[in-house]
Order: sequence, then C-alpha cells, then structure tokens
Amino acid sequence: MMTSTTFLGTGAMGGVLAAAVLDAGRPVTVWNRSQDRAQWLGERGATVAATVTEAVTGAEVTVVCLFDHRSVREVLDPVADRLSGRTLVNLTTTTPDQARELATWAATHQIDYLDGAIMAVPAMIGGPGSAVLYSGSATAFDTHRGLLDRSGASSHLGADAGLASLYDLAILAGMYAMFAGFSHGAAMVAADGVSATDFATRAAPFLAAMTGSLAGSAAVIDAGNYAGEGQQSLEFTRVALETIMQASRDQGVSTEVLRPIHDLVHRQIAAGRGTQGSDRIFEELRRPR
Amino acid sequence: MMTSTTFLGTGAMGGVLAAAVLDAGRPVTVWNRSQDRAQWLGERGATVAATVTEAVTGAEVTVVCLFDHRSVREVLDPVADRLSGRTLVNLTTTTPDQARELATWAATHQIDYLDGAIMAVPAMIGGPGSAVLYSGSATAFDTHRGLLDRSGASSHLGADAGLASLYDLAILAGMYAMFAGFSHGAAMVAADGVSATDFATRAAPFLAAMTGSLAGSAAVIDAGNYAGEGQQSLEFTRVALETIMQASRDQGVSTEVLRPIHDLVHRQIAAGRGTQGSDRIFEELRRPR
Repeated sequence: MMTSTTFLGTGAMGGVLAAAVLDAGRPVTVWNRSQDRAQWLGERGATVAATVTEAVTGAEVTVVCLFDHRSVREVLDPVADRLSGRTLVNLTTTTPDQARELATWAATHQIDYLDGAIMAVPAMIGGPGSAVLYSGSATAFDTHRGLLDRSGASSHLGADAGLASLYDLAILAGMYAMFAGFSHGAAMVAADGVSATDFATRAAPFLAAMTGSLAGSAAVIDAGNYAGEGQQSLEFTRVALETIMQASRDQGVSTEVLRPIHDLVHRQIAAGRGTQGSDRIFEELRRPR
Repeated sequence: MMTSTTFLGTGAMGGVLAAAVLDAGRPVTVWNRSQDRAQWLGERGATVAATVTEAVTGAEVTVVCLFDHRSVREVLDPVADRLSGRTLVNLTTTTPDQARELATWAATHQIDYLDGAIMAVPAMIGGPGSAVLYSGSATAFDTHRGLLDRSGASSHLGADAGLASLYDLAILAGMYAMFAGFSHGAAMVAADGVSATDFATRAAPFLAAMTGSLAGSAAVIDAGNYAGEGQQSLEFTRVALETIMQASRDQGVSTEVLRPIHDLVHRQIAAGRGTQGSDRIFEELRRPR
C-alpha cells in the first residue's frame, strides 16, 4: 500500500505540493486553518480533515507548510504524541536555528525529522525546474524519496537539520537582491516612458547569462585570490556603481538599493584593495554591521 | 574595400572588441594610452598607432572604449576636426545625459554619433551570448551593421543617444544587485564551512530559473495592478526578508545588502498595502530618497 501523507497548511505552496502528490494517485489528507482554502483539494480526491489531530492520526508522513516557525510549533505541539514513530517533513520557511530547534523537539518525541527548502515558486512545483533541498534524517529521506520527488528534484545536504534552511535563505538572499535590482532598473527606464515588459525582454536574458559567471566568482572566493588575472577591479565597479547611481538620480529613482553595494566596495577600496577583484565584497560582508 | 576601423582604448573590453573585428579579416588600427597594452593586437595584424591623431586619421569608423566620459572628451576633443564627416561609436560606460552631451558635441563637428552599450563581459564578445544595444544615428547603425555585429547581436533602440546607456545602466543595476546577493548568500553558508563553489552549483540554476519570472513582474508593474491573483504579498516578503536577515546575523554576516530591500517593502506595508504584491517596491523606488 502507498504511503498515506498528510499536508498541514494548504496555502499557495502547501496546496500545490498536496496536489502534486494527489496527481500521482497517492492517498492524501489535508488540513488548513481556514478550511475553505482546502476544499479544492477535496474535490480532487483528498480527505479534508476538520482538525489537526484528525489529519495526522494514521498518517505515515506529515508534511508541514505553514506561515512561519511559530505557527509550526502552535500546530504541532498538541499532536506530538500522534507523530511519534512517524516521519515529519517541515517545508515551512524557518531560520537554520529554528530548524535545528524543531529537530531537537522531534527527537524528544521519537519523530523522524526532515527539514526541507523548496527552490521554486508554486507554479513550478512538479515541473522540471523545481528542486527541493533536504537535511536532517537520512533514513526519512531515503525511505520516502519517491514521495518527496513529486515536489521537485530532491537532494539531501546532510544530517544537520539546519542545512536546507541555510542554503535556502542564502539563495533567496540572491533572489530578492536580483528582484530589487530589476525593479530599480525598471524604474530607471520607466522615467523615459519605457515599459517594464520591454525592459524585461532585455534584462532577463542578460541576468540569466550572468548567472553563468557566478561559478567563476565562487572559485575566486574559495581561493581567496582577488589579485588574479581577468577580475573586474573594485575601482572599476565603484565607478560603474556611481555612474548608475547618478543616472538613477537623473531619472528620479531612489538609489537606496545600490548604496550599500557601493559602500561595501568603497570600504574595500579604502582598505587599500582598489586594484583587486570586486568579489572581495564577500570578505566585507563577513564583518557584521 | 572594407571599412577601416580604429579602436581607441584597448583595455579588457576594447581589446577583445578590436580582436573580434580583426578576426573577421577587417583592417583595424588601435591606440591605447599605455601603448604596451595594445601590442598583442599588433601581433594579430592591427596597426598600432602612437598618437590619437595618427589613429583616427583616415578611419571611416572610430570606436571609443575608454575609462569614463571625461576620458572620452579628453581623448576626442583635440581630434574633433579629423572625425568630421565620419562615424563615431562610443562604447564607454556613461550616464544617459553624458551620452546626449557627446551626441550634441558630435553634431557640432558633423560627426555621425552612435552610442552603444555592451551587454556582455569581455570573454563573451563575439560569442552567441553577447548583445550590444545602440542608440543615436540610425544611419550610422544601418551603414555599419556588419561591423557592429562582430561584437555581438546588435539592436537600435532609438534616435535619443541616451537610450542605450539608460538601458545598460538599468540592466547593470540588476546585475550588481544579483552579484551582491550572491556574495551575501555565499557568506552565509561559508560560516558553516560550505564552499562558495558548492553554493554556486545550487544558487546559479535557481537564479537563472527565477529570471523567467521577471516578465510576470513586469506585466504586473505595467498594469499597475498589484492586487491581482497569484502575487507574493508584501507581508509575506517582509517575513521572508526578516527570516533571512535573522539567519544572516546568526551566521555573522552583515545584513546591509538586504536592509534597504526590507525597508522598501516595509514602507509600502506602512502605507497600508501589505496584502498587495511585492512588485509594488517598483512604486516605492520612484520616490527619490
């Protein structure tokens, strides 16, 4: 018989995760605080539970996708005994420390705990572009790999339950920065009557191509050799950023997204590193401010 | 006979631009302030000029790729008469206003002026991923299209000489933000002993995939409809950013790259827009600060 799976939280992400498992013909139970937001899954064959206790009772695997760490504890604390001896997969966005705290909590209740981070937006779930990073119990990962792969290509990063979340948040830092930079650029051209859509047709392929240079930056960072050949210097980057900031002001656009990047570069130059590569801002970021 | 082309400035970018034209078997003259940095092009068949005057005399097209706007004027002012009746292509990074100033300067000297922005790093020049945006003289663009295409796929954005630079700087704003976000993420995982290279193998494909969602953000921005279905709310984004910032502090990483993005989101929420889509930060950026 196939693994019975319960999904707690059927919001934008939790809902499509449950649907992907349903579509594979597997038995699914769902619960959501606002039950009406779970009804569409009932129409697709899921059992819609009225309470958390009802939802998790008998489920081999419980997948949690809630608002934040606090809501996970609020929802799970009362049913810890029911989860004992079963597998808990937490896909809620938390900090690494919060994931580790949940792993410790799970261990005290003999719950096999796997923490996961979804590297996709809801529309991508079940498609080829979706990936999910896991850490924590390797046993849970290996046993339920078939189920987990319904959400996207799964990989296990290690026994430390905080690792998936750490990678996730680190990658999302890059994503939010990229999105903010895109909005900044769109605001610059908008002042001259260029649509964001027209801008996106030029910007998106370039940014996608530029992700190809991140491996090169990473190699520089890992070697710690910012004086090697072919690196864009901090001085050059400072001039480029100041040019962009001046043009932004000319276009009536706030420079606040770019200012801290300029300041990181500037502090490295002030420390006498101006001719070295711009990837040195990695070093500057490791000085807490 | 093929167009005789002169390149002023053979730094990291100017050098590969000249080489791409040389490789097409076209006659090329080069000049660089430090003449020794132009010698490798001489060995590949270029005429290495000792002075700017010598370099531009007789050249049908002069391509300028220098440090900044000021160096362009310093190098070109003394030879304006020699450029009269010829085509000048400026690939130096400038602000849109500086490009327009150069176009006006060129017009007073009867120079056909084309401003260009290279959407590539030097290693990409001549390859399939390289694109160059032009604005200014459509005649110059049409006449010399064959030459221009040696550097990358060329497109002409309009007669306003400032447009290419505007697009360029707007796109680079996105790129520098993405790079800074990547460095931030790499610093987060580095605190747990994860290499930047390992991080890049996870982050780069995800960021590349996420560029696919920029067209959707652009459509939201163009419609000005931040209350439509399927948008990630400002409230959700605020929680995500605060989670990333908390985890960053836990890892000993400065939050300065993310703080202004958080503040943009926060100001929109404070204005009562919390349930609307996060692309609203575009509106916030158009209020100069």
